[in-house]
Amino acid sequence: MSTTITTVGLDADDTLWHNETLFRLTHDRFSALLAGRADPEVIEQRLAEVEKRNLRLYGYGVKGFTLSMIETAMELCDGEAPSSVIREILAAGREMLNEPVEPLPGVERCLAELSERYRLVLITKGDLLHQEQKLAASGMGDLFAAVEIVSEKDAGTYARVFARHGTGAAQAVMCGNSMRSDILPALEAGAYAAHVPYPLTWAHELADAPSGEDRFIELASIEDLPAWISKIV
Amino acid sequence: MSTTITTVGLDADDTLWHNETLFRLTHDRFSALLAGRADPEVIEQRLAEVEKRNLRLYGYGVKGFTLSMIETAMELCDGEAPSSVIREILAAGREMLNEPVEPLPGVERCLAELSERYRLVLITKGDLLHQEQKLAASGMGDLFAAVEIVSEKDAGTYARVFARHGTGAAQAVMCGNSMRSDILPALEAGAYAAHVPYPLTWAHELADAPSGEDRFIELASIEDLPAWISKIV
Repeated sequence: MSTTITTVGLDADDTLWHNETLFRLTHDRFSALLAGRADPEVIEQRLAEVEKRNLRLYGYGVKGFTLSMIETAMELCDGEAPSSVIREILAAGREMLNEPVEPLPGVERCLAELSERYRLVLITKGDLLHQEQKLAASGMGDLFAAVEIVSEKDAGTYARVFARHGTGAAQAVMCGNSMRSDILPALEAGAYAAHVPYPLTWAHELADAPSGEDRFIELASIEDLPAWISKIV
Repeated sequence: MSTTITTVGLDADDTLWHNETLFRLTHDRFSALLAGRADPEVIEQRLAEVEKRNLRLYGYGVKGFTLSMIETAMELCDGEAPSSVIREILAAGREMLNEPVEPLPGVERCLAELSERYRLVLITKGDLLHQEQKLAASGMGDLFAAVEIVSEKDAGTYARVFARHGTGAAQAVMCGNSMRSDILPALEAGAYAAHVPYPLTWAHELADAPSGEDRFIELASIEDLPAWISKIV
């Protein structure tokens, strides 16, 4: 292969820093709060249903998740959730928003290296304010030429973002942990895509890997990204 | 005056369509829900305090407002808000997110006219997904060359947005209903600014009008905006 790469897009949650782990911890806390009302699997399933139902209205992020937990608690308690449960859920949501940002291993060195040769663009879903705050707290904000917080990640999104902040998708690499949101639509837009799996992935983000696609690779760690890009160019 | 104007920035909520009216209606509904727990003024004051306290964490928008209403209800009920109140608050938030978008009088014609001569940029705070949905529902999305949903509106925000989507703040006009968020920081960034007051303004957005500022005007209606811009150029 030989091509020009000018721009590297990076997903944020579970690519640059832990996120799903925090959601899982809050799920566990939610389940414990409602223990006795239903089996853990039922609680988990109902919460997933409510989240999915609310996605169109609330989008991605902690605030919508908090509202969905409250709604699920109401349903599981036949409309009469104890106040202590509601207070605990509010507190859990607030703690998620206040949680310190913990970059994943190797991320800072990898981004510092890439930023010397490519334009880095952060491309993420979630609450606008919260994502900006996490980036600021990560100390990596200055490495990015642009930040795009988007409500949906489809091929059109990647085409638009790489046109605006780079030289088009054909000269861009997208890197992220979600096959469904980061990889498949970026490939569809014509970009290269590097999948770096995270041990936990929200069910909503799962999808099969593409087969027979030269522009795709699966990497064990983001630390392998600079070497792969060097091989492309 | 004689200058070149290439770009017109427009605030969304209470500039292009009703918003604060909807928040006021929900405030009234919230107050009625808690009647008997405290006087209406006390309920109003406590909600305002909680909203202000949460602004750093929740930012602007309906989801954060819904969470703040639940928190306020808890406080006013000494931590034991009835489930019926929580359910009603969740429903009120959901209804706000589902509310049809109602453009203010003259907005559509004004934007159609302006879009023929200038690049229109929507610049708004609030929930990313909800603001995108409102713009789509308004039917006016195609009139805008760009949409910037931002977490804060300060002079730096306007300088950056007008540099990215136009030819800099000095050749841009910002129009909005909030003196504090739309007018003063846009003037500080070097843009022209037209204030179109909305009958209701959230207390957080109030500020004094600038004095002795040639680049500022107060308009009774957004319908007067094209004529004012024509006078500048």
